[in-house]
Amino acid sequence: MTLASPALLTDKYELTMLAAALHDGSAHRRTSFEVFARRLPEGRRYGVVAGTARFVEALGQFRFDEAALASLSDFLDRETLAYLADYEFTGDVDGYPEGELYFPGSPVLSVHGTFGECVVLETLALSIVNHDTAIASAAARMVSAAQDRPLIEMGSRRTHEQAAVAAARAAYIAGFGGSSNLEAQRRYGVPALGTSAHAFTLLHTSAAGPDEKAAFRAQVDALGVGTTLLVDTYDITAGVANAVEAAGTGLGAVRIDSGDLGELARQVREQLDGLGANKTRIVVSGDLDEFAIAALRAEPADIYGVGTSVVTGSGAPTASMVYKLVEVDGIPVEKRSSHKGSHGGRKQALRLAKQSGTIVEEVVHPHGHPPVDHGLVERCLTVPFVQAGRPVIDDSLEAARERVRAGLLSLPWDGLKLSKGEPAVPTRMIAPEPGRGA
Amino acid sequence: MTLASPALLTDKYELTMLAAALHDGSAHRRTSFEVFARRLPEGRRYGVVAGTARFVEALGQFRFDEAALASLSDFLDRETLAYLADYEFTGDVDGYPEGELYFPGSPVLSVHGTFGECVVLETLALSIVNHDTAIASAAARMVSAAQDRPLIEMGSRRTHEQAAVAAARAAYIAGFGGSSNLEAQRRYGVPALGTSAHAFTLLHTSAAGPDEKAAFRAQVDALGVGTTLLVDTYDITAGVANAVEAAGTGLGAVRIDSGDLGELARQVREQLDGLGANKTRIVVSGDLDEFAIAALRAEPADIYGVGTSVVTGSGAPTASMVYKLVEVDGIPVEKRSSHKGSHGGRKQALRLAKQSGTIVEEVVHPHGHPPVDHGLVERCLTVPFVQAGRPVIDDSLEAARERVRAGLLSLPWDGLKLSKGEPAVPTRMIAPEPGRGA
Repeated sequence: MTLASPALLTDKYELTMLAAALHDGSAHRRTSFEVFARRLPEGRRYGVVAGTARFVEALGQFRFDEAALASLSDFLDRETLAYLADYEFTGDVDGYPEGELYFPGSPVLSVHGTFGECVVLETLALSIVNHDTAIASAAARMVSAAQDRPLIEMGSRRTHEQAAVAAARAAYIAGFGGSSNLEAQRRYGVPALGTSAHAFTLLHTSAAGPDEKAAFRAQVDALGVGTTLLVDTYDITAGVANAVEAAGTGLGAVRIDSGDLGELARQVREQLDGLGANKTRIVVSGDLDEFAIAALRAEPADIYGVGTSVVTGSGAPTASMVYKLVEVDGIPVEKRSSHKGSHGGRKQALRLAKQSGTIVEEVVHPHGHPPVDHGLVERCLTVPFVQAGRPVIDDSLEAARERVRAGLLSLPWDGLKLSKGEPAVPTRMIAPEPGRGA
Repeated sequence: MTLASPALLTDKYELTMLAAALHDGSAHRRTSFEVFARRLPEGRRYGVVAGTARFVEALGQFRFDEAALASLSDFLDRETLAYLADYEFTGDVDGYPEGELYFPGSPVLSVHGTFGECVVLETLALSIVNHDTAIASAAARMVSAAQDRPLIEMGSRRTHEQAAVAAARAAYIAGFGGSSNLEAQRRYGVPALGTSAHAFTLLHTSAAGPDEKAAFRAQVDALGVGTTLLVDTYDITAGVANAVEAAGTGLGAVRIDSGDLGELARQVREQLDGLGANKTRIVVSGDLDEFAIAALRAEPADIYGVGTSVVTGSGAPTASMVYKLVEVDGIPVEKRSSHKGSHGGRKQALRLAKQSGTIVEEVVHPHGHPPVDHGLVERCLTVPFVQAGRPVIDDSLEAARERVRAGLLSLPWDGLKLSKGEPAVPTRMIAPEPGRGA
């Protein structure tokens, strides 16, 4: 299942601005656009970048074909349509690789090229990075709350059908063990995981009444004793007994999807152990979020199934990043009115840490002018993604997962708290040197 | 831009349940699955159905091709793969057409067929209906808050790039005037609307400094005086003066995207009128939601541009509907454990109203057994979508928009309140007649 060109996943005003800029020649000026978040979602202490690699992939397919051009011909002039027909991005893109932490003002993605070639990418860049980053950022909090217990993303049903695929990928980047989503496995290699639904147990109902044991037997016969049986369709105690009777003490796992999960996990663990099924694991699911996961730490829940909260960003369904023009022909530019001030000029970023590895500051500085003499361990965060239109990054989901692991380890002790707070480290913005201001 | 088969937009467990059900023969039992919401999002008084038509369209493309089957072959047996290779839905689908209001327990979508052909549709049905309904439900509150002023959906950048297209469609169903999203226009005919971004003004910066007037002139030259000029990049008062100077008093509109929108709208209206631009309209945008829109009622804001809040469901990014097996071979079934009890049996629904048209009750009743003697005006809500695998509904977005308009008019007076409350009308669930219980 491949998608056609993403060129129309674009706001109309980008193309009317292009038309106006072609008309007066300004479309050919050299520009830098920057994707960043003015703030983290309320009370969050860090964010996790995702989507930058997916944007680079989409950029390679960003072409206006005949059908797309036909749909634009009622409001664009011939010159603009001709420009779009030949459109191919030939500029540079750099930014934070997937899995990297970010903070307010971090230049997560920067796009450099003519105004014409950059302006039309606004919606696509933001849609992808805002969505994927929102999911990865929420998911990382759940991974951290779960400590070493595995998490399964099973929220496809609670989000748009294509967003579900990207959400599975983003949750995997953040450290989930896998996802229920089969397309995410096919497209990205995210491990597909699954258990069983109440429907399967209910299916085994006859005029004589329900027959949970028949359902469990059928599942074990077809899928083996390593399967996960859902034990809360009728009575959980009877369900556990039926499950062990059907599968034997080698049963892989049971799932509890409702009720007081902590209390039930304790009861079920005791019952399983009493039946000799000491190695049968307990999967819990049902409206789990990072807080509920943390509250289950002391309970014998072995695996968490997480749905709605992860695919909807656990209260922050978008990362609210913006795509701002920051430089024109070498001149830094910025909006002046209101509180929405952005910082002009093309930028890079580095992160400063103590010798212990604990980070202390995010430093955003003018391109090519990093600060010196800070006496700390520095790591450059900005990497090239595309040069002269060609992708130059060869990243993997495993590398992104490793970045999240390292990033969470690098946070100061209170950075992992789930409660509301300030960003874990401050961001220092270094202005362009005097004389470059617009 | 067409999507390939949606068959892998599916949770793994649906296919392993299918495998087990094929193994013991239960896959061929006749079943009914029902999509419904146990409750509305917190404090909401009504919801608006969207996505049912999009599901029916996707159902027609739901096929497992060679590539899909290859990606499943590591965990499915040969019989199951053969079943999927031949898969084609041959059952019936009915439910609420798009734009219809719904309440807790409303049977929004029902799927009837063998267990095998129905179980694999769970994720796709829920993804589409949960997403689109969440957006339409939030959007309808904004439409109602805006009274007769038009709304533009411009939130594509704050949600997944494909979700954005569906969100534009859902907001249009709810009564928005159009969307910034070009693919929504191409794919669904949603009117594409747009203004201009700060980037276009900033682009017109030289070593001598910013030149807002040059930017406005370029836009007017290319797009005509009917265009919308964004006046808050630098100083709004100067921006309005520059705008009228560039376009004349026939300027279509100005947009304000930051600051105290009510206060600024008053100032800008006064300034425009003073300049003779009495017909120039004022577009306001910037973190608007239904509450902010309502608060602007007394202000001279003519058009609302709404982004993040509408595409993220204004606090409720999913409708949280579930897909439950309710009947097997004519026997009603339901889950017994916990508070998650659903109501067994295939159902239909009708809505009762006073002679005045004000609705008083949602009645969910066993299929083919509507209540009688209620002394009220009744309207059947359940319509056929698919019969024996063939779509039988020919709906339009305009018809859906008319349903929303009529639905909002039919609510009791407090149903339109934005504050948190109970559903506007109660739902009465009529149980299957005695003797049919499982």
